[in-house]
Amino acid sequence: MSQFFDRHRPMLDTALSALRRREFWTPFPEVPSGKIYGEIAREDGAAAFTALQRRPFDLPGHPEESRLGAEQSPFGPALEISYPSASVDTLIAASQAAAPALAQAEIEVRVGACLEALVRLNRMSFLIGNATMHTTGQAFAMAFQAGGPHAQDRGLEAVAMAWDEMTRFAGAARWEKPQGKGAPVVLDKHWTVVPAGVSLAIGCNTFPTWNSYSGIFASLATGNPVVIKPHPAAILPLALTVRVLREVLDEAGLPADAVLLAVDGPGAEITKQLATHPAVRLIDYTGSGTFGDWLRGNTTAALFSEEAGVNTVTIAATDDLAGMCANLAFSLALYSGQMCTAPQNIHIPRGGIQTDQGWKSFDQVASAIADAIDTLLSDPARAAGVCGAIANPATLARIEDARASGRVIRDSTPLGEGRTATPLLLAVEDGDPACERECFGPITYLVAVDDADVGIARAASLARDKGAITAALYDLDEARIARAVLAFADAGVNLSINLTGNIFVNQSAAFSDFHVTGANPAGNASLTDTAFVATRFRRVMWRRPAAA
Amino acid sequence: MSQFFDRHRPMLDTALSALRRREFWTPFPEVPSGKIYGEIAREDGAAAFTALQRRPFDLPGHPEESRLGAEQSPFGPALEISYPSASVDTLIAASQAAAPALAQAEIEVRVGACLEALVRLNRMSFLIGNATMHTTGQAFAMAFQAGGPHAQDRGLEAVAMAWDEMTRFAGAARWEKPQGKGAPVVLDKHWTVVPAGVSLAIGCNTFPTWNSYSGIFASLATGNPVVIKPHPAAILPLALTVRVLREVLDEAGLPADAVLLAVDGPGAEITKQLATHPAVRLIDYTGSGTFGDWLRGNTTAALFSEEAGVNTVTIAATDDLAGMCANLAFSLALYSGQMCTAPQNIHIPRGGIQTDQGWKSFDQVASAIADAIDTLLSDPARAAGVCGAIANPATLARIEDARASGRVIRDSTPLGEGRTATPLLLAVEDGDPACERECFGPITYLVAVDDADVGIARAASLARDKGAITAALYDLDEARIARAVLAFADAGVNLSINLTGNIFVNQSAAFSDFHVTGANPAGNASLTDTAFVATRFRRVMWRRPAAA
Repeated sequence: MSQFFDRHRPMLDTALSALRRREFWTPFPEVPSGKIYGEIAREDGAAAFTALQRRPFDLPGHPEESRLGAEQSPFGPALEISYPSASVDTLIAASQAAAPALAQAEIEVRVGACLEALVRLNRMSFLIGNATMHTTGQAFAMAFQAGGPHAQDRGLEAVAMAWDEMTRFAGAARWEKPQGKGAPVVLDKHWTVVPAGVSLAIGCNTFPTWNSYSGIFASLATGNPVVIKPHPAAILPLALTVRVLREVLDEAGLPADAVLLAVDGPGAEITKQLATHPAVRLIDYTGSGTFGDWLRGNTTAALFSEEAGVNTVTIAATDDLAGMCANLAFSLALYSGQMCTAPQNIHIPRGGIQTDQGWKSFDQVASAIADAIDTLLSDPARAAGVCGAIANPATLARIEDARASGRVIRDSTPLGEGRTATPLLLAVEDGDPACERECFGPITYLVAVDDADVGIARAASLARDKGAITAALYDLDEARIARAVLAFADAGVNLSINLTGNIFVNQSAAFSDFHVTGANPAGNASLTDTAFVATRFRRVMWRRPAAA
Repeated sequence: MSQFFDRHRPMLDTALSALRRREFWTPFPEVPSGKIYGEIAREDGAAAFTALQRRPFDLPGHPEESRLGAEQSPFGPALEISYPSASVDTLIAASQAAAPALAQAEIEVRVGACLEALVRLNRMSFLIGNATMHTTGQAFAMAFQAGGPHAQDRGLEAVAMAWDEMTRFAGAARWEKPQGKGAPVVLDKHWTVVPAGVSLAIGCNTFPTWNSYSGIFASLATGNPVVIKPHPAAILPLALTVRVLREVLDEAGLPADAVLLAVDGPGAEITKQLATHPAVRLIDYTGSGTFGDWLRGNTTAALFSEEAGVNTVTIAATDDLAGMCANLAFSLALYSGQMCTAPQNIHIPRGGIQTDQGWKSFDQVASAIADAIDTLLSDPARAAGVCGAIANPATLARIEDARASGRVIRDSTPLGEGRTATPLLLAVEDGDPACERECFGPITYLVAVDDADVGIARAASLARDKGAITAALYDLDEARIARAVLAFADAGVNLSINLTGNIFVNQSAAFSDFHVTGANPAGNASLTDTAFVATRFRRVMWRRPAAA
């Protein structure tokens, strides 16, 4: 039954080593290449996606009382896929029925099933890429990477951390306490990993797999059955995940209902009902701070959250103005700013900055960034490949509203196919309330600050008070960089310094970068630190005198 | 500055190994012997305790706006010691002022200081023993052990876990991502341990050091300044601890105010004010479930709690009736049942049990336990040495009230010096509500159940619903024992099977037994698992292109 575990043990061991060393590693190649995934993988994936549309999605044995699903690609067409749907009580009852067998299974059986599922999901990355593209609006290359291998990396990372934690202490021990000259007291002790209870994963629209796999796999590996509640607009990537997991669980001799899909429709969401069900003891949540606050106030389950924040870039100086602007242009345009890691505010000293091209004024720096975006998006095919489409119509409305909130440096424009928008750049003065709240989407404020130190201080205080997942700094003054390192650490936000070339502040690599620190309002969990897995189970002991 | 760390590194390494193996180990001998602690250590400790009485307690440099303290020994005399006292705002301001230097210190400096403090506390174990005895009512031998070496063990365990967790992942890494035929992306990354904030330790009356050291040392090692709020009746053991910690912090170049004493008086407790101060991010709490509920409802700090429960023994069968009864007698009489691990309900089949002395009826088993208590307490000096005194007058009143709640099998009686009470044994029928809530103190219900399986089921459901820290089973049927193991694991309570001789269900040994599982209402934290330390800090990164 642990043949899956034996098969994938080398991958697990390498993952554990990578986690400790935090160096680059991945078993799941991010390049959507036929040489890696098979010569016809691209065509197969596209065909499989087409074949799923306009019909009921098959989830054998899954609780089903009705069919729901109304996904529409941000690139245009409705998917017309219906998914099995059941009431909250039915889903929780099925989850609870699966719990004892999952809890009592050997750790190796659960972990092995998780590893096998990840490898199977990896093989399906082209299909997952298409499914992600047409539910999130990500362009294909990004949808493949973020929805496929990068999400699988995060899943593997969580499984490895869970394995490490479950096996951190001996599972059994002989405890021999000396008694002076008398015979020692000798006890045999044994510890069981006891899962917390039903685990709820609340998916988001923009990264349905990447943002959910950590919690799903951490809970499952530690023995908690998982109910996956996808965003109504991005069901398919998680439905495919559920299907693979249920197949593997079954093959591993575990109950398929340890993973369930909880589909709902817009306006009839069942998230609150699920989150407040007393059987639900763990909740992984990606979404707004408003709903995060609701969860904190209304559930007694342990909450692992990624919420919202105001990510900043502070530009103090650069010795590569062109490289900096090109790098920022990509960070702002990528998936039209719909990443939780995308910068929103760019702090620029009002009096300008030192660069390799001489002193540049605030407006010159602003123009250089705008020009770099224009250059990046000058080729329509490349523009579409970078920006993708807008997941939620509300984002387009937000861009409309934002346009009046500052001096327009670069206007947002549509792009080809689907619901699209390029970055809107607005200049504002430091302290403008417009830029001190999260504006999700391709909206960037270029904020005029008194000087670089003020810009850093403002960035740190925004992170501390409003939350932030990323911060970036361009600077040449090592003393100021050292001060910034302290300030951003104190504000609990990860800092990227002087990025140019093919690495971006938006990027967070599994096995090395902890995603979200948990130390500011942008989220209380970190992917994947020990706290993310260690509270999903407890250890319970029995002890008795050793047989003579 | 890390000379303390270097000095104690071998002890730390051995502690880490012990924690992984969960075998017996301690660096702090539990025997109050002159051969170990020095020939005149006993006399020195007694003299030092006498010298502390009837005068102000000296805490150099500690915030002080007034003096408070009205401790009275449960054995009689008032201690007449006054402690420096300050308002909540003053204490929190001093704690926050100490925070940055503590946070930015090298991990080795903080951990080294914690280890040195524990070693110094160990040398003071006779003084701590006297202080514990005359604030808790524990007899001296127990006060020495539980207040001294056993508490120090728990402190060391927490420091070792914190060290292990803070150093679990590389603190720095070079991340080199291949770019096909191009040059790789090379980033240098660095992670900082960022503490959560001010940590509040809420002490209890019965085990002021044992129940507080885990949280205090876990928070301090991970960089959080600690405000220690002792129970108004048991200040001295924690005041001595604070003094040692402040001395060592100062010698280590760290701010002494990283550890503060928050003394209050009965009827004017400042616990709620402290717990709801926004700067307080961590709370370690031992006490009632009622106040635990208040904390959950009123603070946003992370809570690590040990609350209340109904501990049970289920007697199904025994091949050593005398040994079982002697063992249970000691567990019930020790510190007059005022341990969070002491059994309250003993489930005995109504029709009797199989024993090595033949079949014994319910009443015969009940009498045998009562007789064993009488035998244990027949010598007055031994009786005083086992039972000690009653910490809180309310416990005597509770015994009075309980007397009418069942058929008296053995009455509670006073014992020599001070406020004392021997175990009260009451027979009740299964389902009697009197025994289904915690009755703190020397009150034991002998509960007549239909059969052993019903007794086990009732014990497990009480643990699940009301909480339990310990459960015990006496049985000879291995199939039933295996079922009980599953049932108690599912209820999240540690189980001791067939204990006789010099090991008792009350005992929880650091480095081996996780104290409280966190998996039932008796507490949400476990001493000391990973979750206990991992959420006291976060990791924050900076990354930048590696220098060419």
